[in-house]
Amino acid sequence: MRITNFIQSKLMTAEEVAVVLPEKVTIGASGFTPAGYPKVIPTAFAKRIEDETKKGKEFSINLYTGASTGDELDGVLARTGAMKKRLPYQANADLRNQINSGKIEYTDLHLSHVASYITHGILEPIDVAIVEAVDVTADGRIYLTTSSGMSATYINHAKEIFIELNENHPLELKGFHDIYLPDLPPKGRPIFITHVDDRIGAPYVKCDPRKIKGIVRTNLLDSNQDFKKPDEISYRIAEHILEFILHEISKGRIPAEYLPFQSGVGNVANAVLSCIAKDSRFHAIEMYTEVIQDSIFDILDADKLHCASTCALTFSKAGQDRFHANINELRPKFIIRPQEISNHPEVIRRMGIISMNTALEVDIYGNVNSTHVMGTGMMNGIGGSGDFTRNAYISIFMAPSVAKNGNISAFVPMVSHVDHHEHSTQVIVSEYGLADVRGLTPKERAKVIIENCVHPIYRTPLKEYFNHALEVSKTKHTPHDLRRVFDWHIKYLEKGTMKPD
Amino acid sequence: MRITNFIQSKLMTAEEVAVVLPEKVTIGASGFTPAGYPKVIPTAFAKRIEDETKKGKEFSINLYTGASTGDELDGVLARTGAMKKRLPYQANADLRNQINSGKIEYTDLHLSHVASYITHGILEPIDVAIVEAVDVTADGRIYLTTSSGMSATYINHAKEIFIELNENHPLELKGFHDIYLPDLPPKGRPIFITHVDDRIGAPYVKCDPRKIKGIVRTNLLDSNQDFKKPDEISYRIAEHILEFILHEISKGRIPAEYLPFQSGVGNVANAVLSCIAKDSRFHAIEMYTEVIQDSIFDILDADKLHCASTCALTFSKAGQDRFHANINELRPKFIIRPQEISNHPEVIRRMGIISMNTALEVDIYGNVNSTHVMGTGMMNGIGGSGDFTRNAYISIFMAPSVAKNGNISAFVPMVSHVDHHEHSTQVIVSEYGLADVRGLTPKERAKVIIENCVHPIYRTPLKEYFNHALEVSKTKHTPHDLRRVFDWHIKYLEKGTMKPD
Repeated sequence: MRITNFIQSKLMTAEEVAVVLPEKVTIGASGFTPAGYPKVIPTAFAKRIEDETKKGKEFSINLYTGASTGDELDGVLARTGAMKKRLPYQANADLRNQINSGKIEYTDLHLSHVASYITHGILEPIDVAIVEAVDVTADGRIYLTTSSGMSATYINHAKEIFIELNENHPLELKGFHDIYLPDLPPKGRPIFITHVDDRIGAPYVKCDPRKIKGIVRTNLLDSNQDFKKPDEISYRIAEHILEFILHEISKGRIPAEYLPFQSGVGNVANAVLSCIAKDSRFHAIEMYTEVIQDSIFDILDADKLHCASTCALTFSKAGQDRFHANINELRPKFIIRPQEISNHPEVIRRMGIISMNTALEVDIYGNVNSTHVMGTGMMNGIGGSGDFTRNAYISIFMAPSVAKNGNISAFVPMVSHVDHHEHSTQVIVSEYGLADVRGLTPKERAKVIIENCVHPIYRTPLKEYFNHALEVSKTKHTPHDLRRVFDWHIKYLEKGTMKPD
Repeated sequence: MRITNFIQSKLMTAEEVAVVLPEKVTIGASGFTPAGYPKVIPTAFAKRIEDETKKGKEFSINLYTGASTGDELDGVLARTGAMKKRLPYQANADLRNQINSGKIEYTDLHLSHVASYITHGILEPIDVAIVEAVDVTADGRIYLTTSSGMSATYINHAKEIFIELNENHPLELKGFHDIYLPDLPPKGRPIFITHVDDRIGAPYVKCDPRKIKGIVRTNLLDSNQDFKKPDEISYRIAEHILEFILHEISKGRIPAEYLPFQSGVGNVANAVLSCIAKDSRFHAIEMYTEVIQDSIFDILDADKLHCASTCALTFSKAGQDRFHANINELRPKFIIRPQEISNHPEVIRRMGIISMNTALEVDIYGNVNSTHVMGTGMMNGIGGSGDFTRNAYISIFMAPSVAKNGNISAFVPMVSHVDHHEHSTQVIVSEYGLADVRGLTPKERAKVIIENCVHPIYRTPLKEYFNHALEVSKTKHTPHDLRRVFDWHIKYLEKGTMKPD
């Protein structure tokens, strides 16, 4: 780290920043998944809140980020009890509990909508941006760390900016980012990305340096958990997806050079990449996605990555070490983009993405619930799944057929919350098989989903429900018996299982 | 009409065409709303099917169009009993009955997805295109009539093309169309439309003239029903919308020159335009929409139309007469685009559309059902409402608070089918008022929707449901009691009313 006169003149401790933050504040923070989020300022601020709340002071915090972040931001601030509003995505246990107990108001937004809501003044305006960086210049160039997220927009709109200058991120991260914000209506122009590796912006976020009120030096790593190897069921799901892709290529519906892949976070997404790496029928791929995880190293080891465009590099400790050791060699392979671009419908539709996202539950007609456990409890949020699904070339939803030791079926008569509806979902896959429902009508969909994806213990009951619904529905375009449609969920809520008696 | 040697050489009667159409056939037809669809060939084909079915022949027809069409296409073919598959949208009573009795398989698609599904071979391929035109040249330039719809894509993909040369449409329609099809992945490029009146294509569809197998002369008008003046309730809804737009302008959230309007088909949409025409606080507007109806004449009379981009001109008989009488004067005001462009997410998001569409029912959290009566019966289809809602600058859903003499509440605990979910809906309006739910969390949304939009007889019961759900839900992000969530619908199905006892 090079401490210039400018940086020197702005240096503060985290505790000093914590003291000057307002008691009622809307914070726009860097971070997208536990990558590139501020760590020491939120922790010091939480400490201050806890201390001063005891003395009767009242705090009220709205926290906006890119997506989920680490516990040093989401966890510490949630636990103060002072968080009022959170958006657009989260995945922290303490935060989730407060959302579901009704204490925190959580606005679960399409990630591609956040910038418009901020810029057009729909949301409470941002007072303070807190951003992690590897470098800052005297003329206001801020070089971000392992994610881009909403940082550029938040920096633009904040009245004051505080920076965590994190020396554990190598200075060589400079150049990975491509910071470009689309012009918003009424001044919209085309976004000139036609290939995954097109660069159209700058490697830094530019701001008025007078808005930078403090810089805090830190060396805390992104706190990712260890990378878990995908399990057997994830590999079986992944194999169905790979067979489907090869089949589509053989039919001429996917070009032999593929289309860019988007893959969500989690076991199955990692299993897909791991299988592509191992499978000799697959050559090099491109990714246009939100999050890159450790599974990318399998692809790199197999020399099967042309380029990956992402909004965040979310590595485990081991992954970070490996990334740092090879950072200059890896530079041409990665572009980190703001989520305004990584998730933009224009670019996703144009390039023709093959998107792969996880479903909590899917119904017989292909409606997908990604967010709500039993219809009422927030899991994480819709995140970018809508941005990708709605505009993908092929949209794939993946779900292990059962959860909780088989007591929950991921395939149900009707989903208890809809995040992706039958008009937008195309391919559904579990470890039992894959249902390609593109172009099918509701009744045709029900047949292939029940036949191909459902766990054997739930297959007959689901077939029975469908036949019953077909019989009792007066209008039969999408047969349902509204009297029985949530019987499975109700049984789970009452008896802890959906299993047939 | 100028009958060139080329046209002369291809002339056939509708009956002659009907005879050469295959018994098992997938037809791609022109038409978007009852505008610009073929009339005499389908009618003759239906006659042949009825005659030959009696003699034991079997027919099987898949019909793809732009959107809904007139009875001379949808009605006559549905009534033969030979229609197997229909997409992507319909609004014909006989067709609807067969869809809901389970006889016709209907794929209800986002209109912006159809071209990709056709081009990439997801759907059964098109054998024959039947297209209405005002002129055809020897080198294969086809000049369409009052709609653009899917015609260009269907003409590209059909093995054989039949044309209805309709002399009731004036030759002066040449020049209204701007035919441009986006390059699809992996060859996607930006679509260079940044203003409503940008032209980027040709005034005709180009085809290999050898594919044109027959031309039928006709003079039947588009069979639009008489234009119904909006009712009192529609005007009250429209006034809430206008007040909202003026309020947003005063807050700086909509520019003073406005943003382009999209408005769906129907009473309320027409009332909005009629009110803009009359209201001296409104100056000239632009429209980027799918359908232009007679209400545009109010806007034109008030000299308040800069330009309207549409996919169809759907006028009543009186409207058509008026349009024809002034066609050259009106030419600079209108552009007719293929639905690949009128509904393209890239262009809609870039320009920042104010979209206004009708909801069948809305729930307390702002999920919208546009398609399914009581969750099982198809009304018309999702059409373009998803294309616009998902990418609009402001998305407005409009619904009279009750239907069927007050026996159905448009506002319910949970919608029985989801076409637009809480993440994508922004403004909900009934004749009682408007709920701006942008940026709100589910519980915040419930409060403003119940307070502002619901009919008085259903307001207290809905509030009671929400309070009950809040009490009994173990997790309270989106409170629901799955045991009672469809009680209103079930009561209507059993007793013919949702009204509280």
